[in-house]
Amino acid sequence: MSDENDKKWFDKKISRRDFLKKAGMVGAGAAIGASGAGAIFANMFSGKANQVVGNEEISFYGEHQSGIATPVQKNVYFAVLDLHSTDKEEIKQMFKDWTDYSEKLMKGELVAPELANHLVPPLDTGETVGLNPYRLTITFGISPSFLDKLKLDNKKMEEFKDLPHFPRDQIKDKYKGGDICIQACADDAQVAFHAVRNLVRKGRALITLKWTQAGFLPIGNGKETPRNLFGFKDGTENPKNNNDFKNVVWYDKNNWLKNGTFLIVRRIQMHLETWDRTNLQEQENTFGRYKESGAPFGETDEFATIDINKKGPDGKPVLPIDSHVYLAKKADVKIARRAFSYSNGIDEVSGQFDAGLLFICFQKHPDQFIKIQNSLGNDDKLNEYITHVGTGIFACFGGIKKGEYIGQKLFE
Amino acid sequence: MSDENDKKWFDKKISRRDFLKKAGMVGAGAAIGASGAGAIFANMFSGKANQVVGNEEISFYGEHQSGIATPVQKNVYFAVLDLHSTDKEEIKQMFKDWTDYSEKLMKGELVAPELANHLVPPLDTGETVGLNPYRLTITFGISPSFLDKLKLDNKKMEEFKDLPHFPRDQIKDKYKGGDICIQACADDAQVAFHAVRNLVRKGRALITLKWTQAGFLPIGNGKETPRNLFGFKDGTENPKNNNDFKNVVWYDKNNWLKNGTFLIVRRIQMHLETWDRTNLQEQENTFGRYKESGAPFGETDEFATIDINKKGPDGKPVLPIDSHVYLAKKADVKIARRAFSYSNGIDEVSGQFDAGLLFICFQKHPDQFIKIQNSLGNDDKLNEYITHVGTGIFACFGGIKKGEYIGQKLFE
Ligand code: HEM
Ligand code: HEM
Repeated sequence: MSDENDKKWFDKKISRRDFLKKAGMVGAGAAIGASGAGAIFANMFSGKANQVVGNEEISFYGEHQSGIATPVQKNVYFAVLDLHSTDKEEIKQMFKDWTDYSEKLMKGELVAPELANHLVPPLDTGETVGLNPYRLTITFGISPSFLDKLKLDNKKMEEFKDLPHFPRDQIKDKYKGGDICIQACADDAQVAFHAVRNLVRKGRALITLKWTQAGFLPIGNGKETPRNLFGFKDGTENPKNNNDFKNVVWYDKNNWLKNGTFLIVRRIQMHLETWDRTNLQEQENTFGRYKESGAPFGETDEFATIDINKKGPDGKPVLPIDSHVYLAKKADVKIARRAFSYSNGIDEVSGQFDAGLLFICFQKHPDQFIKIQNSLGNDDKLNEYITHVGTGIFACFGGIKKGEYIGQKLFE
Repeated sequence: MSDENDKKWFDKKISRRDFLKKAGMVGAGAAIGASGAGAIFANMFSGKANQVVGNEEISFYGEHQSGIATPVQKNVYFAVLDLHSTDKEEIKQMFKDWTDYSEKLMKGELVAPELANHLVPPLDTGETVGLNPYRLTITFGISPSFLDKLKLDNKKMEEFKDLPHFPRDQIKDKYKGGDICIQACADDAQVAFHAVRNLVRKGRALITLKWTQAGFLPIGNGKETPRNLFGFKDGTENPKNNNDFKNVVWYDKNNWLKNGTFLIVRRIQMHLETWDRTNLQEQENTFGRYKESGAPFGETDEFATIDINKKGPDGKPVLPIDSHVYLAKKADVKIARRAFSYSNGIDEVSGQFDAGLLFICFQKHPDQFIKIQNSLGNDDKLNEYITHVGTGIFACFGGIKKGEYIGQKLFE
C-alpha cells in the first residue's frame, strides 16, 4: 500500500473547491473527460466543458442567519435533535464548534481536513470532496424545552412555547417536540445531507436524532414560483423585500433573539391520490387561484393583489370563503413561507405515495402562524386532502459576526 | 370566478417548454424578476437572467431503452409495482399508454394537456408545468412473476428467475419481488417523481405500488465520478464505450429481450455511524482504493488498471484480499453499475440516519451479478458496514422505434 499517495487525504487543508481547482474543473480549459471517466458518469455536459455548477457561495455571517430570507434552494435536509446533556458549558462548546463547521461547510470546505493521523477516523465524512458550495445555508434554532433543560429560565419569553393543538391535527409523537433544529438547504441533496451529518457527528455525545426529513423544490431557473405536489405555485404571497422581512420576520425586541425569528415546521402529508381524482374546478376552488397561472380568481397576474371582500357580478365573493387563500388572508397577518416537498416511498397503511409538504415558515411572533392555522384549521377546503402529522417551534438566533458564535447572546 | 382565465389550463396543448417559452424564460432577454416574484423565490440566478437550466432532452426511442447507458442524472425515483390484473390485453394497453406518456414526459410535455372539460380531474398532475425535461429517462422492466401471472410461459428464459439468497442477506418482504419496475431519472427530483406518479396513475386499475425509493447523486459538473455516502468515488470501474456495453450489458439472443438487459436492484442500508468511527486506513482497506483520489492501492490515477494478483515488495497482495474491489474483480465478470444514494429520515430501531445505496446494475446475464455478489457475500470487509434489505430482478425490454410500444415483442 502506497503511503505516499495515501497520506494525501490528511497532509493538507483540502477545500472542496481547491480540490476542484486542482482537478482543473473550475474556470477554463481542462478536458477531464479525457482522463477516461466512465461513459455512465461522464459527458453529461458534453460540449460545455467549462460550465461551473454550484459555485455560488453564501456567507454564514451577517445580521441574520442565512436560509431564512435566502432565495430557496433545490434541496433541504431538516433535522430535529434532542439534548442528551444538560451541561450548559458543553452545549455552548457544541455551538462554538458548529459555528466553525458551518462557516467552512458554507464555503465549500471540509469541516476539518487538517488531521494528519492515518489511524483515526477522518473528521470530515468526505462525500462532498470535489463539490462546490451549492449555495448551502445552515440555520440553527432551539425550542422551549431547550431553555427548560438548560435551566435558562431568565431567557424565556411568554410567546415562546409549544404550539397549541389545532383543529384536525393528527400529530405523531415521533414528529413532535425536540430541543434543537438544523435546517440545511443547498442546490445539491448530498451537500445538504453532508452538512447535517457532520454537525450531528460533532455533537454526538450531547445530542440524539429525533426526526429528520429531506425535501426538494423544482426551482427551475429561479425565476418562477415553484409548484408543490398538488401542481399549484406555492410561495407567491411572501415577503418580497427587506422592508417586508423587517415587518414580518425579524424579531426586534432587545434580547438574545434580536435579529432572529421563530421557525415553525409542520410535516404535512398530502393525499395525492384523492387530490388527483378531484376535478380542476374543485382544485382551483380549494385555493382560490388558477392552477396554470397561479393568479387569484378574477385576475390574470400571479402577483395581483387580493381583496377577499371583492364580490363578483353575482354578488358572491370572488374567492370561495372556504378556500385556502381566502382563509389565510382572513387571518390578516403575514408569515414568510419556505416549504419543500417530500416523497418517502409508500405509506404502509394506505399503500399510496407517502408524500407531502415539509412546511417551514418564519415570523417575528408565533401568533402570526397560530392565527393563520386557526383560521385554516376547521374550514379550509384543503383539509380534505392533507393531514398535519408533525410540528415544531424553534427560535432561530440572530446572525453573528466573525469571531462570535451562533447562540452566543443566549449563553452569555 | 373568471371562466376566461380559468379555461386556459385546458384550451390548448401546453408543453412544459412552450409554457416556459411563453413566459420568456427560454432564450435571451426577458427579465422575469421584474414581474415581482417573491424575494424568497426569485433572483437565485440574479445576473444570469438568460441561463437555461435543465433544457437537455433525451429521446424515448432508440435501439436500447434510456436510463441504462445514459450518463447518470442527479435524481432517481424507482418504483416496483404489483399486477392487480392478469388480463393480457389490459396490460398490453397499459404499456401502449405508458409509451405515449413516456415520449411526452421525456420531451418535457404534460402527459395529456388537451383535455377541455373543466369538470373532470386534469389528466396531468401538473407539478412540472414550466419545467424543462431535465434529461428525464424512463426505463421499464418486468420480473419473472410477471411472466407467470400473465401465463407467458413460452417467453420464459432459464436464466430469468428470482435471485438466490446470498450470504448475510437480510431481505425484508416489503422490499422483495414485485412484477414491474419503473426507473425514472432526471436532474430534478420533482420531474422524476412526476413521471412515476403519472405513469402509475394511468395504470391505477391494473397495478398497485409495492415499494418505491427516491435517490440522489452529487454529479457536480458531470466530469467526476460521484461519491457515495461513505465518501468514496463510486462508479469508476464501469463500461466506458459502446463496445463495453455490447459485451457486458445488452442482451443479444434473438428473442423478445433482444437489445434489452437485466436490471438488478438491491436496497442496501449503509451504517454511517459505524463507518464514521472507522479510521481512514480501515476505510481504504475496505475498498482497496484511496479515499481522496479513488485510485487503486499502489496507483495514483483513479482509472488505473487493477491487477489483483500484483504483490508489493513485502510479497503480500497490493489489494487486501478481503477488500470490496479485490473480491468484485476476483469474480472475473463485469456489470454496469448505476447506483444512487438515499436518505430516509431516522431508522426507528437504531435511532441513526436511515441511509444507504439504491444499488442498480445492468447485465446481459443475471449470473454476472450473482457471481460478484457471491464473491462479496461472505468475505467482503464492506459487509461490516452495510445490510442488504431489498432485492429485485427485472428484464428491461429493448428500445423501440416511434410507432411501436414498449414491451411489444413480449406481447406479440
Ligand atoms: C400541504 C399544505 C399546504 C399547501 C399544499 C399549501 C398551498 C398553498 C398555495 C398553493 C397557496 C397559494 C399561492 C401562494 O401564495 O403561495 C398558499 C398560500 C398561502 N398559504 Fe398555504 N399551503 C399549505 C399549508 C399552509 C399552512 C399550514 C399555512 C400556515 C398556517 C399556510 C399559509 C399560507 C398563506 C399565509 C398563504 C398566502 C395567502 C395570501 O395571503 O395570499 N399554508 N398555500
Ligand atoms: C452499499 C454497498 C456498496 C458500496 C458502498 C460500494 C462501493 C464501491 C466502491 C467505492 C467501489 C470502487 C470504485 C468503483 O469502481 O466504482 C466499488 C466497486 C465495485 N463494486 Fe461496489 N459497492 C457496494 C455494493 C456493491 C454490490 C452489491 C455489487 C455487486 C454485487 C458491487 C459491485 C462492484 C463492482 C463490480 C465494482 C468494480 C470492481 C472493479 O472491477 O474494480 N458493489 N463499489
